[in-house]
Amino acid sequence: MQIALSQINYTIGDLDGNVDRMVVDIRRARSEGADLIVFSELSICGYIPKDKLNYNSFIERCSDAVERIKREADAIGVLIGAPVFSNLKNGKRLRNAAILLHNREVVAEVYKTLLPTYDIFDEYRYFEPNTAFQVVEFNGKRLAITICEDLWNLEVPGLYPVNPMDELAKQEPDIMINLSGSPYSYNHVDDRKMRMCNNASHYNLPLVYVNQVGANTEILFDGGSMFIDATGTIVEELNTFEEDFRLVDWSANATYTKDANDFHDNDIELIHDAIVMGIRDYFGKMKFRSAIIGSSGGIDSALVHALAAEALGAEQVTAVLMPSKYSSEGSVVDALKLAENLGSKTYTLGIQPMVDSVNHTLSDAFAGMESNVTEENIQARSRGLLLMAMSNKFGHMVLNTSNKSETAVGYATLYGDMCGGLSPIGDLYKTQVYAMSRYINRDREIIPIEILEKAPSAELRPNQKDSDSLPEYDLLDRILALYIEEQRGWQEIVRAGFDEETVRRVVKLVDRNEYKRFQGAPILRISHRAFGAGRQMPLVAHYFN
Amino acid sequence: MQIALSQINYTIGDLDGNVDRMVVDIRRARSEGADLIVFSELSICGYIPKDKLNYNSFIERCSDAVERIKREADAIGVLIGAPVFSNLKNGKRLRNAAILLHNREVVAEVYKTLLPTYDIFDEYRYFEPNTAFQVVEFNGKRLAITICEDLWNLEVPGLYPVNPMDELAKQEPDIMINLSGSPYSYNHVDDRKMRMCNNASHYNLPLVYVNQVGANTEILFDGGSMFIDATGTIVEELNTFEEDFRLVDWSANATYTKDANDFHDNDIELIHDAIVMGIRDYFGKMKFRSAIIGSSGGIDSALVHALAAEALGAEQVTAVLMPSKYSSEGSVVDALKLAENLGSKTYTLGIQPMVDSVNHTLSDAFAGMESNVTEENIQARSRGLLLMAMSNKFGHMVLNTSNKSETAVGYATLYGDMCGGLSPIGDLYKTQVYAMSRYINRDREIIPIEILEKAPSAELRPNQKDSDSLPEYDLLDRILALYIEEQRGWQEIVRAGFDEETVRRVVKLVDRNEYKRFQGAPILRISHRAFGAGRQMPLVAHYFN
Repeated sequence: MQIALSQINYTIGDLDGNVDRMVVDIRRARSEGADLIVFSELSICGYIPKDKLNYNSFIERCSDAVERIKREADAIGVLIGAPVFSNLKNGKRLRNAAILLHNREVVAEVYKTLLPTYDIFDEYRYFEPNTAFQVVEFNGKRLAITICEDLWNLEVPGLYPVNPMDELAKQEPDIMINLSGSPYSYNHVDDRKMRMCNNASHYNLPLVYVNQVGANTEILFDGGSMFIDATGTIVEELNTFEEDFRLVDWSANATYTKDANDFHDNDIELIHDAIVMGIRDYFGKMKFRSAIIGSSGGIDSALVHALAAEALGAEQVTAVLMPSKYSSEGSVVDALKLAENLGSKTYTLGIQPMVDSVNHTLSDAFAGMESNVTEENIQARSRGLLLMAMSNKFGHMVLNTSNKSETAVGYATLYGDMCGGLSPIGDLYKTQVYAMSRYINRDREIIPIEILEKAPSAELRPNQKDSDSLPEYDLLDRILALYIEEQRGWQEIVRAGFDEETVRRVVKLVDRNEYKRFQGAPILRISHRAFGAGRQMPLVAHYFN
Repeated sequence: MQIALSQINYTIGDLDGNVDRMVVDIRRARSEGADLIVFSELSICGYIPKDKLNYNSFIERCSDAVERIKREADAIGVLIGAPVFSNLKNGKRLRNAAILLHNREVVAEVYKTLLPTYDIFDEYRYFEPNTAFQVVEFNGKRLAITICEDLWNLEVPGLYPVNPMDELAKQEPDIMINLSGSPYSYNHVDDRKMRMCNNASHYNLPLVYVNQVGANTEILFDGGSMFIDATGTIVEELNTFEEDFRLVDWSANATYTKDANDFHDNDIELIHDAIVMGIRDYFGKMKFRSAIIGSSGGIDSALVHALAAEALGAEQVTAVLMPSKYSSEGSVVDALKLAENLGSKTYTLGIQPMVDSVNHTLSDAFAGMESNVTEENIQARSRGLLLMAMSNKFGHMVLNTSNKSETAVGYATLYGDMCGGLSPIGDLYKTQVYAMSRYINRDREIIPIEILEKAPSAELRPNQKDSDSLPEYDLLDRILALYIEEQRGWQEIVRAGFDEETVRRVVKLVDRNEYKRFQGAPILRISHRAFGAGRQMPLVAHYFN
């Protein structure tokens, strides 16, 4: 049997567009001799449509879209994903379904059993889990069809009390097919490959695994669809971070070889590709073409500028320099040099007259009071205001330039430097920002070396350095990773060998700044614990972890 | 048997504080002769601690807190709620437990079966559901102990395939006890009473129902704990929106009477009480004492001012008037009169010099371009900046003054009038804002009548009226309620008798403005579909519902 793997960049809710794109691949597969084409989870509507699923009209339009695909399922089997109404007497109103279409008919409907509800996933919010297991006969073969998480419960102990593939294995299938919606994170790619290979070897069955690709708001999908043989060896692997199509010539007893399984987690190159795709897709799907960035001459805005230039084209990125009396001359020079290296347009808008005007307006109210963080925030918010005005007037989207370290400890001004429609590096710790900046410069100096070498500073008061307020980033980031990614309590972190006072201070800063992150821009997710939907903390919580 | 119902305002994660408060009621109950005291769901840590539950250290500290309660469970049974580690081989690592303590021992642990995962609820994110059912023997009686949602599946068809009380009923219990964490919404109170009464009469058993009270960030709990007899009649009902304690003298064959079951949904008084409690608790639990409000002379800021004055004391609320050249004289007069009626301090900060300075800074960049929404937003953001500066300098929390109608259609400026630490009326449609303002004025004119009578205007350009940009609020709010609360698609709304063009326009505005709401302040939830965690829409979604 010839099986086509179709890895597509779906747009959530764009049912017509998604179906048009799927039809292209169905026709191609048929013309190339495929017996079956496999798409990814919820391919009809894109993964994951969230509360759009609560609208009956949405489910009905998805059903119409399945009808369109059905008409194309002629002389080829088509396996798609779609939300469908449940026909059970009790339970939630929807199922997460894989639908096999053939000869313009629905041949089988299979429902997802294991509904991920953790991190960014919330599927039990919408779907009733499957409890009945049945392999599907197709072209004389027995297909064990599962959906994403269904193959993620092989390890003991499992997250779920049931393992769907154990049930299907009893019915002696010939092959496993998994429709997936599995997002990228820098430690997820290897994990996913390992788990899928383990499934193949455990059940001694080949596995067709199809994932979607592309970004939906903050969630990045790398694709990386695979065909794995029954020994657990990856035979075919589709490209990452782009659409792809592959025809697999499968017969149950064939053997394949491949030089090596190319595992490469934690790779700055992959993270880079993920973020570039994330920017490009957010702009493309939001129908924005151009970005605007507050360019401070620091490394964060420099990296965002470089990444945006790659995603959108340098000519579509405008850098706005907004020096104050505390800005060093170097900052302006460096920011201009960066824009020149990239070929982006710049504006320079001095903020001092505006800041002076604000201070004058407040002078009676603040009479006799010391200058403090208020005045620093006024500068940051003046810049935010000017950026947003430029955005409004020219139709550029503001890119936020915050990194994960400062977002974590609240070293940022709400409505000031926290402005923006998208946060491209909000899931990169400062140390990762440096690593990626060096990667950007791998062939030539794009980010001026001066930016990489100077000490980080917000430049909101004379001679300010980040290290005046925060531990050095090497140390800070290690504590943050233990607290945020690893979810260790402060005492555990101290036991891991860190200074107690520092740990307590950092953890308290993280907790106290939930309120700021609550109002932050969407952050492109590249770790397994990004701020946003993946980490849902109460704002009011008198608990020191 | 004498049973004490303890309705407490817990603070999330304040384990020591919560236990201290519980101990007070345990001692009181014992001294008043109670055999058993019942607390609400997850009482040890407060409902709902969200991703704090992911930290093992948090669960361990909860366990320590249970130990403290255990030592108090002397000569009285104590039924509490707490998260506990699961001892199952597979499944999620936690259970949502009710723990019965007696004679300083754990007598029984009962786990929640039905895990609400919809709207603001996300319990399957954390807990493994129960599948084993056992009544608990105590003092010669058989207690059917359930946790909140477990009693919400009586209706057919049910949201869940299993009904825990059906299983427990087979074991011939003498009484039902439900530990609840059931939030207020204006159509939920009657529903809850009806469902609990139906449970009592259906199983022919009395029901002790204990809910928590108080606000945790945006979620408001009304309390309203009850004792219902086996005929389904409410015998005792605890106060709403405040802590309460009641001793119920129960024997299985007693009969009770009460004049009437006082059902009063959709009552502006209850909504008012809910919001006042929400403001008070957010400030109290965040350890803020004072608020600052941008007072425009319009009805939204007037209502927020009045509510905040009630919650915090008028002297703790500062009103900042920030007129521009487009502000009418009436606006300033009305805002000052409001502050005088309430007894709040005011500042007047004219924004024109600042706005002129911004426009001057941008004059080269904007040369030759028409004035448009950019310049309106500059005014709104200038006000936001000044308010935040006042907040920073004086330590007042900014209260956002947006209502649900404008939040829905995006008739608000991000980082401008969308500023604030809390949005007290963001779940009130404009028509409800008027109704509540009239309620505020029920005894005397607090909100000047001029504010109630003038046409709504943002005053960002000459002679601007909201109705220039939006349908009249009476019409707008009806369409919004169908789209947001009722989750009807636009075609359904048109079929309900609304003009197609208007409906399409409104629905598109709601969809297009997800990105603004993503960065909005937490909104006190008083409806069953508030913006925030209860309505999770993708930002990128090419689907027109």
